[in-house]
Amino acid sequence: MSTGRLEAFSDGVIAILITIMILELKVPHGADLAALRPVLPVFLTYVLSYVFLGIYWSNHHHLLHATKRVTGGVLWANLHLLFWLSLVPFVTAWMGENKFHPVPTAIFGVVMLLAAIAYYILVRAILAGEGASSELAAAVGTDTKGRISPVLYALAIPLSFVRSWIALGIYVFVALMWLVPDRRIESRLRGR
Amino acid sequence: MSTGRLEAFSDGVIAILITIMILELKVPHGADLAALRPVLPVFLTYVLSYVFLGIYWSNHHHLLHATKRVTGGVLWANLHLLFWLSLVPFVTAWMGENKFHPVPTAIFGVVMLLAAIAYYILVRAILAGEGASSELAAAVGTDTKGRISPVLYALAIPLSFVRSWIALGIYVFVALMWLVPDRRIESRLRGR
Amino acid sequence: MSTGRLEAFSDGVIAILITIMILELKVPHGADLAALRPVLPVFLTYVLSYVFLGIYWSNHHHLLHATKRVTGGVLWANLHLLFWLSLVPFVTAWMGENKFHPVPTAIFGVVMLLAAIAYYILVRAILAGEGASSELAAAVGTDTKGRISPVLYALAIPLSFVRSWIALGIYVFVALMWLVPDRRIESRLRGR
Amino acid sequence: MSTGRLEAFSDGVIAILITIMILELKVPHGADLAALRPVLPVFLTYVLSYVFLGIYWSNHHHLLHATKRVTGGVLWANLHLLFWLSLVPFVTAWMGENKFHPVPTAIFGVVMLLAAIAYYILVRAILAGEGASSELAAAVGTDTKGRISPVLYALAIPLSFVRSWIALGIYVFVALMWLVPDRRIESRLRGR
Repeated sequence: MSTGRLEAFSDGVIAILITIMILELKVPHGADLAALRPVLPVFLTYVLSYVFLGIYWSNHHHLLHATKRVTGGVLWANLHLLFWLSLVPFVTAWMGENKFHPVPTAIFGVVMLLAAIAYYILVRAILAGEGASSELAAAVGTDTKGRISPVLYALAIPLSFVRSWIALGIYVFVALMWLVPDRRIESRLRGR
Repeated sequence: MSTGRLEAFSDGVIAILITIMILELKVPHGADLAALRPVLPVFLTYVLSYVFLGIYWSNHHHLLHATKRVTGGVLWANLHLLFWLSLVPFVTAWMGENKFHPVPTAIFGVVMLLAAIAYYILVRAILAGEGASSELAAAVGTDTKGRISPVLYALAIPLSFVRSWIALGIYVFVALMWLVPDRRIESRLRGR
Repeated sequence: MSTGRLEAFSDGVIAILITIMILELKVPHGADLAALRPVLPVFLTYVLSYVFLGIYWSNHHHLLHATKRVTGGVLWANLHLLFWLSLVPFVTAWMGENKFHPVPTAIFGVVMLLAAIAYYILVRAILAGEGASSELAAAVGTDTKGRISPVLYALAIPLSFVRSWIALGIYVFVALMWLVPDRRIESRLRGR
Repeated sequence: MSTGRLEAFSDGVIAILITIMILELKVPHGADLAALRPVLPVFLTYVLSYVFLGIYWSNHHHLLHATKRVTGGVLWANLHLLFWLSLVPFVTAWMGENKFHPVPTAIFGVVMLLAAIAYYILVRAILAGEGASSELAAAVGTDTKGRISPVLYALAIPLSFVRSWIALGIYVFVALMWLVPDRRIESRLRGR
């Protein structure tokens, strides 16, 4: 069973999520620049979430490229990941519209943490099918970024209630850390 | 005529349905946890419908994987299935917003029943093209879950008017029953 | 230049159109069956438009299956067709919400007529690339349904102002006429 | 790493953007032709933006068709382009609803300018992977239209504040200029 349809479906869902977030950018009533000001915090969280979804798409792309067998378990692990990603527009809008109030900022972290865990489960499900001696197993062996991210999210959640900008700073840091694309798997594969 | 484009189109529709349901999750006005409370029943029905659509996608994936010929009849049987699935976000939102009132809960069951029947018709349309002696015919021969599900939906519809949580319990039971992935076709194919 | 990406893009647009129409089905406020009554005319026009978009997808599927070369002209003829199809949810909602008032019913016919003309232009653009002696040219040679449809739409537009149900009857008739799938191209190709 | 999934994802995003714009076409309350009048300026901007997105899709199609290697840099350059394109429905609706007021008309130009720059960066990122001696390098060598467009957008932005119809005229001119499809790459490739 090939990865083709799994990729196509995941692409579809992530493409829709990225574009649905714009619907939250409600067209301002006024026509001057001042009318754009209340849109700005929502816009900035949109940029952040766009980058996060872009990172997931990019890593997902590399991961499935190195996958050869799709089992029923992989299929559901993938649907599980997409579930948490599908909540990103909701928490993004909630956080942006409430000017980074502690509760929505913490909930944003919770969804990001659960998405990171779901990605980890997907990697394990694929490895269970591919075998521990596979190329992919070697490639993800030293997945430092994948291990640090959930720890950072777990830190950000309580810190939202101290100062919400600390949590936000952590989210931005994680995004920047990942923006350096996932060369691990890529370079391994190229080394063939 | 290959199954490629039929899969791509079905993937597109199901991916959109899954993500459109989130639009029903209206961003709460308040910023505290209490503001999330009215969202909760809608969220839980969203989880249920996400699982149902995931099950259909997964089974559809396995079914078309075992299909070799796409006739005009298969094409329309597939559009017919997608029609009932496309009503899932509507009935999900209606049921969730009315806190599982009997009527929307029963209508949810009606749409699920019609989707199950449409799936059955699709399987028959494919078998008509593939031939009764085909691999697929053998694989779906003992489709116990596919036969029990419509019976359970048909039971849930009148029971919604007795106690709507009984109907809801039946829906959750059907979902859990299917979450064990459709290994029948998968294992047959792997046995090749 | 292969037809793959043209198909994928068209599939995406039509899949979205079909599912976006449901967003027009606003969830009723009440929870009883009476609350569904005002939704009914919108629902019925949704069914009609779903069938129309399904017909276009099905015919488009067969048409591109018989196409070998995609020129710049074909690409834009396809975008032109998708433009008119993308107005279908808008005119569908307008007609349904106004209980088949003459003006929206006529405008629905105008959009269907322009879509039919756009499809005709697409067929010509493909034939210009494939050559008059091609298989496709022979297959579409006797395209009776494709010639009758625009005439019927052109009739329905003025008749909307006499009795809107006459126009509606014509739309339903055209849909039923096409529901018999486009076996012309299919059978030609199978005859190879 | 092939271009397949990059194309599929980009197709998905652009297909959704094109169709999401219709959601901005709010169904008028009245049922007569006069009710369509306030929809008209929004409709015309929708046509303009549809053509712009169609142009990007068409050029993107030709560009990736000539691409052989997808690096991490290309992947993010593509996501960057899609980001600016994803703002098109927002600025289109804002401009249309405010009857081409100077500020939204200028902001429309800003988004178009940034999209044009993002497309230029994508071309460079692909060329960096393909090599300066590649076929693609020769094909885009004399990309006159690609160089004029950003200059015209940069002109239109300040001119919006003089007379917004001048800016609008420039946008329409750029669209018409590009509607002549990008035969450069196409003809080069055909010449093989």
